[in-house]
Amino acid sequence: MNSKTGGLTPAVRTRSELLQQVTAWKQAGERVGFVPTMGALHGGHLSLIEKAKEKATRIVASIFVNPTQFAPGEDFDTYPRDEEADLAKLASVGCDLAYLPTVGEMYPEGSVTNVRVEEMSDLLDGIYRPHFFYGVTTVVARLFLHVQPDVAVFGEKDYQQLQIIRRMVRDLGFPIEIIGASTARDADGLAQSSRNLYLKPEERRNAGAMQQLFTGPRSGSSPANRPPPPWRKPARFWPGQGSGRSTMSPWSIRTRFRTCQTHPCPPAQSPGCSAPPGWGARA
Amino acid sequence: MNSKTGGLTPAVRTRSELLQQVTAWKQAGERVGFVPTMGALHGGHLSLIEKAKEKATRIVASIFVNPTQFAPGEDFDTYPRDEEADLAKLASVGCDLAYLPTVGEMYPEGSVTNVRVEEMSDLLDGIYRPHFFYGVTTVVARLFLHVQPDVAVFGEKDYQQLQIIRRMVRDLGFPIEIIGASTARDADGLAQSSRNLYLKPEERRNAGAMQQLFTGPRSGSSPANRPPPPWRKPARFWPGQGSGRSTMSPWSIRTRFRTCQTHPCPPAQSPGCSAPPGWGARA
Repeated sequence: MNSKTGGLTPAVRTRSELLQQVTAWKQAGERVGFVPTMGALHGGHLSLIEKAKEKATRIVASIFVNPTQFAPGEDFDTYPRDEEADLAKLASVGCDLAYLPTVGEMYPEGSVTNVRVEEMSDLLDGIYRPHFFYGVTTVVARLFLHVQPDVAVFGEKDYQQLQIIRRMVRDLGFPIEIIGASTARDADGLAQSSRNLYLKPEERRNAGAMQQLFTGPRSGSSPANRPPPPWRKPARFWPGQGSGRSTMSPWSIRTRFRTCQTHPCPPAQSPGCSAPPGWGARA
Repeated sequence: MNSKTGGLTPAVRTRSELLQQVTAWKQAGERVGFVPTMGALHGGHLSLIEKAKEKATRIVASIFVNPTQFAPGEDFDTYPRDEEADLAKLASVGCDLAYLPTVGEMYPEGSVTNVRVEEMSDLLDGIYRPHFFYGVTTVVARLFLHVQPDVAVFGEKDYQQLQIIRRMVRDLGFPIEIIGASTARDADGLAQSSRNLYLKPEERRNAGAMQQLFTGPRSGSSPANRPPPPWRKPARFWPGQGSGRSTMSPWSIRTRFRTCQTHPCPPAQSPGCSAPPGWGARA
C-alpha cells in the first residue's frame, strides 16, 4: 500500500476501516507511526512523516479540521482544505494510509466526553485561547484510540501543545511513544504553517523579519549587524496582563481583533467579550 | 497461570509487568476480559468475573481504592482492604491476574489529566457527590489504557456509573466491549456491597426491609401482603432540592451527615460546607 511512486495515499473515513488495516499491520509485526494534521499540508507536516518513518514501519496520517479547538469567530469555516493535494503530498513521502474522519465519526451524536490536561492548558497560549488545548487533547485522545499507534510525531513549532500531549500520554498511560520534531522553516526563517497562506505579501515579509528579530539573521552575521526591524517600537498587545510578553502568533492576534470589533476598549469591556481587560490598547 | 485449584491469583503492581503479560496473551490470540474493583470483594464482584469469563479467555481484575472518587470526609482511609483474602477469592473463580497498582502508578507525580463525561456526571448521584463520576472516569480511562482489555464488565448495581462508562467508551472510541452484569443480592434482596460491612445489625435488617419496600417480598406474596416497613414515614433528606426523590444510598446519606456535623442548619450554611441549603432538616 506504500505509495512512494506517486499518486494518492489511500484514504479511509471510518474508524472500523482504519482499525481493520491497523490490526492487520500489527498482527504482521509492523510498528505503526501516526501524524495527526488538520490538512493544508506543507513541508513541516511532511518532515513529521519523515520523522515517523524513522520510528515505525507503517505510517498513518489523519486529516481532520477539529471544531472543538476553534472558538467562535476563529477560522474554522475558512481553514484551508484541499484533500486531493494533501493525499498527493502524503504519497510523495510514502505515507501508507490517510484517516479522514467525518465530524460524526470523531464526535458521535450526544458526545459529552472531554479530556483535559489541567493547569498546563491555561498557561501561555491557553490564556488567549481558553478552550484551545482542551479541544486539542479531546481530539488527540480520540485519534490515539482510533489509530492505536505505537509512536506519534508532533512538531516542536507548537511547543506547548507537544508538552501537553506528552503529559496526557504519561498521565493516562497511553502505550504510545511521543516524538517531537524540529520546526521546518522557509528560507527567511519563518516557521512553515498552514495559516501563512492568510498573510498578504507585506505581512509575509514582516513575519520573516520578526523571526530574524528574535533569532538574528540566518546567514551568520553578528547581532550588531541585524537588519532593522520593520517597525520602530513593538506594540504591547495585552497591557492589562502583567509583565509577561505575549506569546500570541500574528494569526492569533488578528483573529482576536476580529472577534472584538464590538468591544469599545479601553477601558470598558463588552458583555460576553472574552478579551482581557484593556484589550486593544497600545503603548 | 489460571488458579482455579485454590491459592492466590498472581498479582502485579506495575503497568510494565501488566503490559508484558497482556501483550503475551494477545500475541497468543487470547481475548482479555477486565473487571475493575476497589477490593473488599464479595459475591457481586465474583459474579462479574464469571460474566467476564463468558466473553474472554483471560481475566484481569484490578484492585485499587481510587482517591479521586472520594471527597474529603468520605471513607477513603477506612475503606475495607484485605489483599490476601481478595486474591484468594479471585483465585476461587479462576481470575488469571490481579493488577494492584500504587497510587503513584495510576497518578504519576504532577498528574493533571482528567477525563470528564459532562452532563451525565452531574445528574442523580452526581448531584450529591459532585466529583465522584469525574474521579471514576479519570481512573477507569487510565485502567483501560493500562490493561488494554477487549471486554470489561461493570455491575448494574452502579447503574449511572455503567451508563457513564458506556458513554465514555463510545465517545472516545476505546476498542472495548462494555458488559453490564445483573446485581448480586443477599437472601433478603439487599444488593451485595463492600460498604454493607459498615452496617450495624439493625441497620442491615432495615436495609433489607427497604429493598423489600421497593420491590415487594422475595417469596411471591402480593403487594397487599408486604410486611410493614420499619418506619412510619420516610424522612425527606433533601428538603431544599425540589420535588425529586433522593437517589442517595444509605451509605451516602450517613457520610454526608458525618461531613456536616459543623453545619448548624437549617437555615444557615457553614462556609465550605458542600451540603445543599436546608441540609439536615426533616419533614
